[in-house]
Amino acid sequence: MAPMSAPTSDLAAARIDVVGLRRLLDEPYEEVRDETRERLVRLGVLPPETLSVLPHEEYRELVLTWAQQLAADGGTGLGFPTEYGGGGDVGGSIAAFETLGIGDLSLLVKCGVQFGLFGGAVLHLGTRHHHDKYLADILTMELPGCFAMTETGHGSNVQQLETTTTYDPDADQLVVHTPTVSGRKDYIGNAARDGRMAVVFTQLVVGGESRGVHAVLVPIRDVAGRSRPGVTIEDCGPKTGLNGVDNGRLSFDQVRVPREALLDRFAEITDDGEYFSRIENPDKRFFTMLGTLVQGRISIAGAGISASKLALSIAVRYGERRRQFGPPGEDAEAVLFDFRAHRRRLLPRLARTYALHAAQQGLIDGLHEAFGDFAESEDPGRDRRELEAAAAGIKASSTWHTTDTVQGCREACGGAGYLAENRFAALKADTDVFSTFEGDNTVLLQLVAKGLLTDYRDEFGDLDPLGMARFVADQVFETVIEKTSARQLVERLVDAVPTRDDDAGLLDREYQLELFRWREDHVVAGVARRLKRGIDAGQDPFEVFADVQDHVLTAAWVHIERLLLEAFDGLVQRCGDPDLREVLDRLCSLHALAEVERDRGWFQEHGRLSGERSKAVISTVNRLCDELRPHAVDLVDAFGIPDELLAAPIAFDD
Amino acid sequence: MAPMSAPTSDLAAARIDVVGLRRLLDEPYEEVRDETRERLVRLGVLPPETLSVLPHEEYRELVLTWAQQLAADGGTGLGFPTEYGGGGDVGGSIAAFETLGIGDLSLLVKCGVQFGLFGGAVLHLGTRHHHDKYLADILTMELPGCFAMTETGHGSNVQQLETTTTYDPDADQLVVHTPTVSGRKDYIGNAARDGRMAVVFTQLVVGGESRGVHAVLVPIRDVAGRSRPGVTIEDCGPKTGLNGVDNGRLSFDQVRVPREALLDRFAEITDDGEYFSRIENPDKRFFTMLGTLVQGRISIAGAGISASKLALSIAVRYGERRRQFGPPGEDAEAVLFDFRAHRRRLLPRLARTYALHAAQQGLIDGLHEAFGDFAESEDPGRDRRELEAAAAGIKASSTWHTTDTVQGCREACGGAGYLAENRFAALKADTDVFSTFEGDNTVLLQLVAKGLLTDYRDEFGDLDPLGMARFVADQVFETVIEKTSARQLVERLVDAVPTRDDDAGLLDREYQLELFRWREDHVVAGVARRLKRGIDAGQDPFEVFADVQDHVLTAAWVHIERLLLEAFDGLVQRCGDPDLREVLDRLCSLHALAEVERDRGWFQEHGRLSGERSKAVISTVNRLCDELRPHAVDLVDAFGIPDELLAAPIAFDD
Repeated sequence: MAPMSAPTSDLAAARIDVVGLRRLLDEPYEEVRDETRERLVRLGVLPPETLSVLPHEEYRELVLTWAQQLAADGGTGLGFPTEYGGGGDVGGSIAAFETLGIGDLSLLVKCGVQFGLFGGAVLHLGTRHHHDKYLADILTMELPGCFAMTETGHGSNVQQLETTTTYDPDADQLVVHTPTVSGRKDYIGNAARDGRMAVVFTQLVVGGESRGVHAVLVPIRDVAGRSRPGVTIEDCGPKTGLNGVDNGRLSFDQVRVPREALLDRFAEITDDGEYFSRIENPDKRFFTMLGTLVQGRISIAGAGISASKLALSIAVRYGERRRQFGPPGEDAEAVLFDFRAHRRRLLPRLARTYALHAAQQGLIDGLHEAFGDFAESEDPGRDRRELEAAAAGIKASSTWHTTDTVQGCREACGGAGYLAENRFAALKADTDVFSTFEGDNTVLLQLVAKGLLTDYRDEFGDLDPLGMARFVADQVFETVIEKTSARQLVERLVDAVPTRDDDAGLLDREYQLELFRWREDHVVAGVARRLKRGIDAGQDPFEVFADVQDHVLTAAWVHIERLLLEAFDGLVQRCGDPDLREVLDRLCSLHALAEVERDRGWFQEHGRLSGERSKAVISTVNRLCDELRPHAVDLVDAFGIPDELLAAPIAFDD
Repeated sequence: MAPMSAPTSDLAAARIDVVGLRRLLDEPYEEVRDETRERLVRLGVLPPETLSVLPHEEYRELVLTWAQQLAADGGTGLGFPTEYGGGGDVGGSIAAFETLGIGDLSLLVKCGVQFGLFGGAVLHLGTRHHHDKYLADILTMELPGCFAMTETGHGSNVQQLETTTTYDPDADQLVVHTPTVSGRKDYIGNAARDGRMAVVFTQLVVGGESRGVHAVLVPIRDVAGRSRPGVTIEDCGPKTGLNGVDNGRLSFDQVRVPREALLDRFAEITDDGEYFSRIENPDKRFFTMLGTLVQGRISIAGAGISASKLALSIAVRYGERRRQFGPPGEDAEAVLFDFRAHRRRLLPRLARTYALHAAQQGLIDGLHEAFGDFAESEDPGRDRRELEAAAAGIKASSTWHTTDTVQGCREACGGAGYLAENRFAALKADTDVFSTFEGDNTVLLQLVAKGLLTDYRDEFGDLDPLGMARFVADQVFETVIEKTSARQLVERLVDAVPTRDDDAGLLDREYQLELFRWREDHVVAGVARRLKRGIDAGQDPFEVFADVQDHVLTAAWVHIERLLLEAFDGLVQRCGDPDLREVLDRLCSLHALAEVERDRGWFQEHGRLSGERSKAVISTVNRLCDELRPHAVDLVDAFGIPDELLAAPIAFDD
């Protein structure tokens, strides 16, 4: 039976070079990605339904073994200097990590903890003597370790951590201590079973004075696996997912370590027992240290995208195979994709996955540039701040997209999607925490917004009084425009011009970008105004913030949306194959217009869409779904997930 | 520290009588609900983290034992006639079942399969001799059974089932047979381990002629648990959740059963071997049989609501306890609810849960009326059709709400929400399939829409030519109004009148209801027009449908939204306590306006909200969240979930 939806353009005739598209998506890390895919296949990952019933202790053991095999195979050290056995390729290390996301996600997180967080902290917060002493063993997994930041009472507010490290000048030692239950390190990966050392984030006290949060290396187990004296280790127990990772709790009872255990890149205790940092401002020092977390956020963003790709690869293939209902009087039932609701459920999510992939590639490039020589400056400056903000934003956007996409794909596969063998069980359970760890998404959006407002304040600052006056007048003018809706009326007149192809303008990339940019500018300006108004009125700053919080989050969201659309557009531009480019261009439009459709309430409120044009957006999204449907399977095949890893029986012909 | 958000009305002073509110929610089934709560506590349900790692075979054994205990305790037979040991209280049986939703959901589903689906089919599709022979044993769980409808290749399209039952007049027997793999019965609860008999839905062939789908009782295991000859049973294996239920696959190889095995309430094979049914139209016969499924859908709707209540009870309590960040310079950090984004995340979902609860109560009343005397007519008529449509719609709405609410609550609890002990792990995994089983939600929405359009056609049919002309003219007029946006301009003028309390109108229940009703009428009329246009143009009906599907689903959705708001309003009206009523009234407004906010794109497109008024909706939702926040804990406590069942450590003070 022919597809139900007759395409209304030539797009159906476009031929997708799947290999070429895959290369376009993989570059410049084609080799690294292919090697990782092969490594995962070689590990011989168990069938998902078997893995789902493995007792947790066996699962943990298996994941440790896999991680060791990957390490021995050279698959995990790409991001470290070659002198310690690494690959000296920061960008490649992220590409490799995110490719692990198509395999077992406990393995991914185990590797993330060992090589990204623990190894990364030693590399970026430590100095030469820490590197020489530990990095080689970390890379081979001879020294399994933890990244002990979160406390039971303190998740997102790291500056308020309770664990203390007090310098004892007499013994020339550091004393690490957990004063309260809420100060216990919690949810720490690698802690419950395998970790032998931990990077512990604590309040450093030197000379009786608190110096803010610093990281200290603390041995937690001996080689025989026994807890070190003064260290109490608990198991966090069963979790929603990721049960191959041994999350635990760590408490310290006056545990003594040598002064050298302080990771002293940004602050040190001198031989005289004095505290010294070249970064004088404690806040700045703190955020500089935290800046090294950027790599973890980019890694999780990528893992989320990989999980989305996997879910879509299964659901899209099933959607072209599974028959349900059908035209009356015909023998064969229609396939799921013959129904518009099915195309609507999967194709905008597929488009957004491409957008995120493109944005993620931009993050990897930025990271590679910032950290590529392992010697970034202490004041990373504006580029680095922009990278951090973009990483925070894309991590939030990507991981929420993962939750949404995995759920949508599961539902699109009906009851079959509920069986563990078809992978959604583990995908759902394992990815669920992505929106929380490496920074809670809501808190990350606030970080993004803070960056935007800082930029804004800077701009304000640069304006002379005349410019400032003009700015305020512009705002007032804009408000007036909105209230009288003159702009809307003008647009309505334009819309009234009869035209056969009345959504032509909607497919114009410049028009789409302009809509996204205008929205961002407008929302950010609005937040700035509301904040200023509250402050001017003498309100308590916290209350002002609490009151504007939803607006602040919107500002961050629409900023990220603009980044995503620009990134996807960049991917389209890079594509040389005319057929492929046409398909990608439409996919990019689907991504853009699906977002405009979602937020069309806002665009109408602000006079940027008339009611008629808003309705045209909906029908154009429908049309794009219809046009892209014949290419859907090719578009997921280009994600290059090997059949062995796709695994789900419903993704294959019987 | 005082709450950050100063309430802007007197609502904060309102005193909630939690016991009274609980009674209002529970009535008229307070006793049944309380008994069920106590029964669940008495079962001594295991801690969630223990349950989460139980090997599946042990879990299945445990769930069977619990179900048997409940049955022995009289907790599961309420919906059956007293002469077979039942309680003769159909409405109470649903109230009891939905209360099971605050306990282990495998137990709920196991009971649903045994007593609702299997027992319900024997009761409603069978006749006296089936009842006498089986019901007593079904009620005690002496005879565990299955409801074998779904096939591997046929989930939603039950009319296309492949399994056949052929009448052999020589032996006076029925021969049940599975012709293909896609005709295998799949995902059947109680099949993999415990079931001894199955109600099998098959194509009945009598006298060489196919008579459509009919249900036949087929023994599948002997008392020793061995498969009967000709019956092949497979285990579906691990699932995302509900692993205490033994889902399996059944295939039949020419299995012979006596003629009496046919459940013959709506069609029989006479002693002469002739097929006879008083319902001549095969489609009508089929849908009459399927009508008995209504009870299952109402049950799952209720279970979804209970799961939402549980998730919200945990997250709301945690939101008032957990501290994070805080006003600079103060020692104590703020609690999560001090942040607007947190209130926004939880309170509209809480409001919607109340709306669903109220609508569900209406369904139970309707069901009790329709099935209360266990002797409903064969042509159930309009009331019954309306009940079926409402049940389908509220099941879809409720279960999607569950998925959304459990996810939102998990994220609102951060990393702690990821630990199995805090219940979201099982809640997520177990409820995920609610949107698929007992009718896929998307398919159910289509069923709802079909009912709406049928009503519409009836209305059309009743109109004389003059009325018809007026109707069409009205539509055109309306379209013109929208295009010129005259209505919008008028509303804008109204909005421009300065008023201190500019959202006063928004809180008017009549205004809210009118918005919802207008939207429903408009969307349904639009679908009818588009369908008619397509048919008039000679398009293939399936193509016409496929093309309008998204609009059809919207029609169903907005219809259900109207039902929900009316139901919630009814609950407010029933409340006699003035303080409580005021709080519920605001909660109802929050529910209504959160939905208007979600769909404000549509309301603007159709000239029902100006941009300014649309913005006012957003700020009113914010304000209502602020005002209701002091009552949030009371509003979840009124759900009456015993501490033992709430279980999650984060829901309690340390």
